[in-house]
Amino acid sequence: MSETPAAQTFSHLSVRLAQVANPQSAIVHFGSDAPLPLDCGVALAPFSIAYQTYGSLNADKSNLVLVCHALTGDQHVANIHPVTGKPGWWETMVGPGKPIDTDRYFVLCPNVIGGCMGSTGPSSINPATGHAYGPDFPVITIADMVRAQARLLDHLGIPDVLCVLGGSMGGMQVLEWAATYKDRVFSAVPIACAARHSSQNIAFHEVGRQAVMADPDWCQGRYLEEAKNPRKGLAVARMAAHITYLSDEALHSKFGRNLQDRDKVTFGFDADFQVESYLRHQGLSFVDRFDANSYLYITRAMDYFDLAADHGGVLAKAFAGTRTRFCLVSFTSDWLFPTEESREIVHALNAVAANVSFVEIKTAKGHDAFLLHEPELFDTIGGFLRAGALKRGIAAPPGSKSWP
Amino acid sequence: MSETPAAQTFSHLSVRLAQVANPQSAIVHFGSDAPLPLDCGVALAPFSIAYQTYGSLNADKSNLVLVCHALTGDQHVANIHPVTGKPGWWETMVGPGKPIDTDRYFVLCPNVIGGCMGSTGPSSINPATGHAYGPDFPVITIADMVRAQARLLDHLGIPDVLCVLGGSMGGMQVLEWAATYKDRVFSAVPIACAARHSSQNIAFHEVGRQAVMADPDWCQGRYLEEAKNPRKGLAVARMAAHITYLSDEALHSKFGRNLQDRDKVTFGFDADFQVESYLRHQGLSFVDRFDANSYLYITRAMDYFDLAADHGGVLAKAFAGTRTRFCLVSFTSDWLFPTEESREIVHALNAVAANVSFVEIKTAKGHDAFLLHEPELFDTIGGFLRAGALKRGIAAPPGSKSWP
Repeated sequence: MSETPAAQTFSHLSVRLAQVANPQSAIVHFGSDAPLPLDCGVALAPFSIAYQTYGSLNADKSNLVLVCHALTGDQHVANIHPVTGKPGWWETMVGPGKPIDTDRYFVLCPNVIGGCMGSTGPSSINPATGHAYGPDFPVITIADMVRAQARLLDHLGIPDVLCVLGGSMGGMQVLEWAATYKDRVFSAVPIACAARHSSQNIAFHEVGRQAVMADPDWCQGRYLEEAKNPRKGLAVARMAAHITYLSDEALHSKFGRNLQDRDKVTFGFDADFQVESYLRHQGLSFVDRFDANSYLYITRAMDYFDLAADHGGVLAKAFAGTRTRFCLVSFTSDWLFPTEESREIVHALNAVAANVSFVEIKTAKGHDAFLLHEPELFDTIGGFLRAGALKRGIAAPPGSKSWP
Repeated sequence: MSETPAAQTFSHLSVRLAQVANPQSAIVHFGSDAPLPLDCGVALAPFSIAYQTYGSLNADKSNLVLVCHALTGDQHVANIHPVTGKPGWWETMVGPGKPIDTDRYFVLCPNVIGGCMGSTGPSSINPATGHAYGPDFPVITIADMVRAQARLLDHLGIPDVLCVLGGSMGGMQVLEWAATYKDRVFSAVPIACAARHSSQNIAFHEVGRQAVMADPDWCQGRYLEEAKNPRKGLAVARMAAHITYLSDEALHSKFGRNLQDRDKVTFGFDADFQVESYLRHQGLSFVDRFDANSYLYITRAMDYFDLAADHGGVLAKAFAGTRTRFCLVSFTSDWLFPTEESREIVHALNAVAANVSFVEIKTAKGHDAFLLHEPELFDTIGGFLRAGALKRGIAAPPGSKSWP
């Protein structure tokens, strides 16, 4: 007997909400005595960080690879996702024998502060009220996310990272790590990102936020208390954002003007074109796994990101004195974070004589290329990590065949 | 005494709705005995076309310049807009001594079928019910719009046009005119357009439509009957679309990451950034002057546009035998209708040995360049029109100084 769509939706929501308080991953709770100081001035306490690990920490604690996830990502990098039942978002990249080889490295991915998969965020319970924070959650920044991650490393007793890497908002976190914790970052791979969020990107985020807030089921942010969910608004936000993750060329080659299960247009507002059907599906499946307020807060954190502004307006100053080995990656067809923005970071790193390499990968896949099957990306990251590990004198694990 | 925002809104809506039935412009009513055959199979009757004219028709009836408006444009090209009180959308282009010189040419701009400024559209009264059509209005196409315009010319007793021109959706109408009424188009200027709507553009339109339809005040399209208006949904649709009308570079140079009337970010969801404030204003002012269902119907007409598909999949066939003089214009920073799409039209015209010139204008203003102060566009259109008029042997008007 098949479930009705309504029952499915309810089931998805309850499965998702269960992950907020009691995630299907490791979690660390920091108590009232250990607040997280936020850029907005609030001391967040208590707070929790949910995370996944893959592989094993070596005896020297020198093989940690920290993966920072993107806007709508989470800690489920390389395991079945507890809400969607689908593979992790970077299964192609992380695993035994894969570019981020879990036979060699200890891979850690924390859910960001502000998220909705177990780390403290707007859908977590506000101890002051006993209800979800909702709009009372403090606005967080990329620096706050990274500060929380550093606290997690402290808690785990890991002094530093062999490599911190991530794409899109993950790349922003990588840059923040490299700028703020210079002695704790041996190498860094910012992928498809920028040192500041552009005007156009802020504009797209604002459209998404307005779509969510226009939904009466958003209830001024208190939808959980009202037992509602701004599904339609969040779906529209996701649809708009999704277009920016792909390239014009990718959309054209994937869908063109192909019709969806019909021979001719219907002269109506159904999804006549495959691209419409695809976008609607993207919107609807997203709302089953993501929290609307988290979407507002995390987009805001990205908008606020401006690493140069935090260093007197000069990006190079953010990296002064760095000994971190950098590898930047951009994609030719990425119009959300165009190559030029990676190049600006490279220029700033060159200005402080940092150890930096830069790879612009030719692809039609757009911004999402970092999540997809992109052999040159796999080779770049696998090779860069291996060179770093050798440089750091990390011994081969027992029984390893491919370790050089 | 200043009005309250609510009173202003009400006033805007009533002023706007008054234009539907009784526009502040010329209007022709076609009765039940003169239906407009639509591509969807419906015969629309009765129907009306509201239009504006500037200048005078010469004795030979050979100096008509037909201006086709874009998605959210209307017939108020060069006069104060009756709803907004602002100058017409092409005041820079149309007027005495301007590139489209009303001392020389008789300029006509009809509101498109499906629109909301007097031509029959979804907010017009459906004679079958006595209420606004709403979702019962038939889905219209670019070809339907052009067919209605040809009927208007028949009614006015004007055999052909010296030049038909327009940008964006206006350019699509120009192409349709040139393909369908070859003997009635002496010259044609399609600006910043394409012979078919791309997958990415369909995607953006679909986001806008979903935003409107997600608004509970849309009432399944029957908001006028319910005395409601899906303002929030339409504002979100407009915000998303507006980003696509500008270039990344234009947004960056206009707004960058500048803050709106504040020294630092507020750690909240107010419009901290100027670009957010600007977009919100664009959304809100749009809903005061435009009908939500018209937005759905006209975006759909653009999505359906595929001139080659109507001619066996070969664009050149659409223009076979043409004697029209063409001048195509594109803008370097237009990513909604990139130069490549104009070039495809030029190739098709070359394949049938048409008389065609093509100007790609270097500008950072994006798609909206066709509406803005762009001297090279003014020179191009002014010169092309003058050459066409001379070629056609149009005599100088009495007392004209600048007429060659």
